[in-house]
Amino acid sequence: MKKHNLAIVGFGGMAGWHYDLIEKIENLSVSGIWDIKKERQEYARSRQIYVYKSFEDLLADETVDLVLVATPNDVHKSIAIAAMAAGKNVVSEKPVTLCSADLQQMIEASKTYGRFLTVHQNRRWDEDFLTVKKVVEEGTLGEIFKIESRVHGSRGIPGDWRQEKEHGGGMVLDWGVHLLDQALLLFPSIPLKTIYATLTNVTNQLVDDGFTADLGFANGVHMIVEVGTSNFINLPRWYVLGTDGTAMIQDWGENLKIVRACGVNEEDVVPVRTAAGLTKTMAPRREDSIFKEERPEEKSDICEFYQNVMSVLEGQEESRIQLDEVARVMRVMEAIFASAQNCRVIRFEE
Amino acid sequence: MKKHNLAIVGFGGMAGWHYDLIEKIENLSVSGIWDIKKERQEYARSRQIYVYKSFEDLLADETVDLVLVATPNDVHKSIAIAAMAAGKNVVSEKPVTLCSADLQQMIEASKTYGRFLTVHQNRRWDEDFLTVKKVVEEGTLGEIFKIESRVHGSRGIPGDWRQEKEHGGGMVLDWGVHLLDQALLLFPSIPLKTIYATLTNVTNQLVDDGFTADLGFANGVHMIVEVGTSNFINLPRWYVLGTDGTAMIQDWGENLKIVRACGVNEEDVVPVRTAAGLTKTMAPRREDSIFKEERPEEKSDICEFYQNVMSVLEGQEESRIQLDEVARVMRVMEAIFASAQNCRVIRFEE
Repeated sequence: MKKHNLAIVGFGGMAGWHYDLIEKIENLSVSGIWDIKKERQEYARSRQIYVYKSFEDLLADETVDLVLVATPNDVHKSIAIAAMAAGKNVVSEKPVTLCSADLQQMIEASKTYGRFLTVHQNRRWDEDFLTVKKVVEEGTLGEIFKIESRVHGSRGIPGDWRQEKEHGGGMVLDWGVHLLDQALLLFPSIPLKTIYATLTNVTNQLVDDGFTADLGFANGVHMIVEVGTSNFINLPRWYVLGTDGTAMIQDWGENLKIVRACGVNEEDVVPVRTAAGLTKTMAPRREDSIFKEERPEEKSDICEFYQNVMSVLEGQEESRIQLDEVARVMRVMEAIFASAQNCRVIRFEE
Repeated sequence: MKKHNLAIVGFGGMAGWHYDLIEKIENLSVSGIWDIKKERQEYARSRQIYVYKSFEDLLADETVDLVLVATPNDVHKSIAIAAMAAGKNVVSEKPVTLCSADLQQMIEASKTYGRFLTVHQNRRWDEDFLTVKKVVEEGTLGEIFKIESRVHGSRGIPGDWRQEKEHGGGMVLDWGVHLLDQALLLFPSIPLKTIYATLTNVTNQLVDDGFTADLGFANGVHMIVEVGTSNFINLPRWYVLGTDGTAMIQDWGENLKIVRACGVNEEDVVPVRTAAGLTKTMAPRREDSIFKEERPEEKSDICEFYQNVMSVLEGQEESRIQLDEVARVMRVMEAIFASAQNCRVIRFEE
């Protein structure tokens, strides 16, 4: 494979993550960085990373064929378009823009300048997601009717631009963009008919610090996608209901647990007695009427992200992240805001 | 206290539960039962319980001042009204009727005949509910913003009239009536503004075998109320989010777990690394930045239900179960059906 040179615009936390990742990737090097903040420039120099004199200086470097945009969300668009105009291919951090109209402008710039544009939807490689995708596809649980995907923290929103609306802060754009992308990939060809969502403003009034969305698909499946930042006890990362069984991943890196019916007919169910009533309907299953299974998560390699980018540049592969998929997620996020603002169900792909 | 005699109409599973309960209650006796099914009559006789010759025979027994209606849901109304017309006071099993209009007829009959009518909302005495009510009221968690109440089983709907729409089957009417009643009692004076709900038909096409409802209250609190009968792994019975902490009860009879912030400011949060990314926002709290607490559930005595009924009959107490509360729950259930049928948000008390 040909050697590729990448320059980084915006050297905050995520850029550091990219830098470490790129060091592992053959034939890909970081030529240098640009950041408008002096302290981030200093930090880069302290790590022996070259700092360009300006954004224009970076764009003028003819050895650079790839620009990573890792700035606050509101300036992805202008930086990416300028980079493409200067002949660079672009990897943008997520969310690629703050709205569909802006994304459309970026896509058009990509066509106009004939440059490759992609988005760092890194959590497509998260092993919990890949494990759930596999169990959904293999049919172990029978027909899937509900999937719940949650991430919970208790720190509110990080105390930087992520708290500010004009920079594209808030949890729908920050974590929602990952979880919604994953959700849509579980049934990629099924229209998403309805969206109902609520936002929270527990620690922050300017932007949402969490949300819950119910996505109703044309195949009858409902997906609950939820982000919380004032949750001191976490609900499971994944909870998947099929006609024949249930699967759950409690937390990142933990096993997938499956419990399903094994066809043994239970007679004489012993009711559960509480202080004030009894119920057979909600009584636990007898152990001999269920199969229990635990599986480690699927393995993945996030290096594939940049390897795929380079293969696309060399005309050898399709991009693993298609811009129409990114645009669909953006429209879902817009529908979530619209649903929450007016407390109504949004008709989506009908 | 005066001696009271109760006759039971409909001697299925719940009536047996009442019979055992009444045996513990001083000054309350079961005079006998009536059931249209021969095998239930036989069963009663085998337990040395007197079986009336007919419903009319039961109503003609002047020693009976109280009738328990424990039939399938669709005939509660006609039996209760006939009993009140015959001068009896009435305890109806839940759901009291299948719709608000029917309930209104029962309430009017109660006024017309000057008889006491109440509903066996027994799960107001469930200890998990009382424990959550206490933690919500005492303010330990700060300002409450979300409460999630779920019961999950994996047996579908019991294979009797509960599977049939015309008899008032389905999980909204069966378990929903309890969970919604509890939910409304957590903030009894706050208007319920919006209702969004989805139903499931996994094991049964005639009636819902589960539902999820999002109740939006005027104080900004959202309550999720959910019943599932194809859930082989249970989500927690209760999950309560406040601005300062989270509380959870995993299952009936288990301790309430509380985790809350203790005011220690965490510096240098260690990010959680997954295969494909890292996050500080969702990183677990350091142990020294939280308080953890476990409490056993509050204690309750379901005998209070019938003791209260008797006290009401003697003019000594107000009914613990007010018919306007029962009517409100009925309207919520109707709104749940309307929301699910048309996939829209129902404006409720605006």
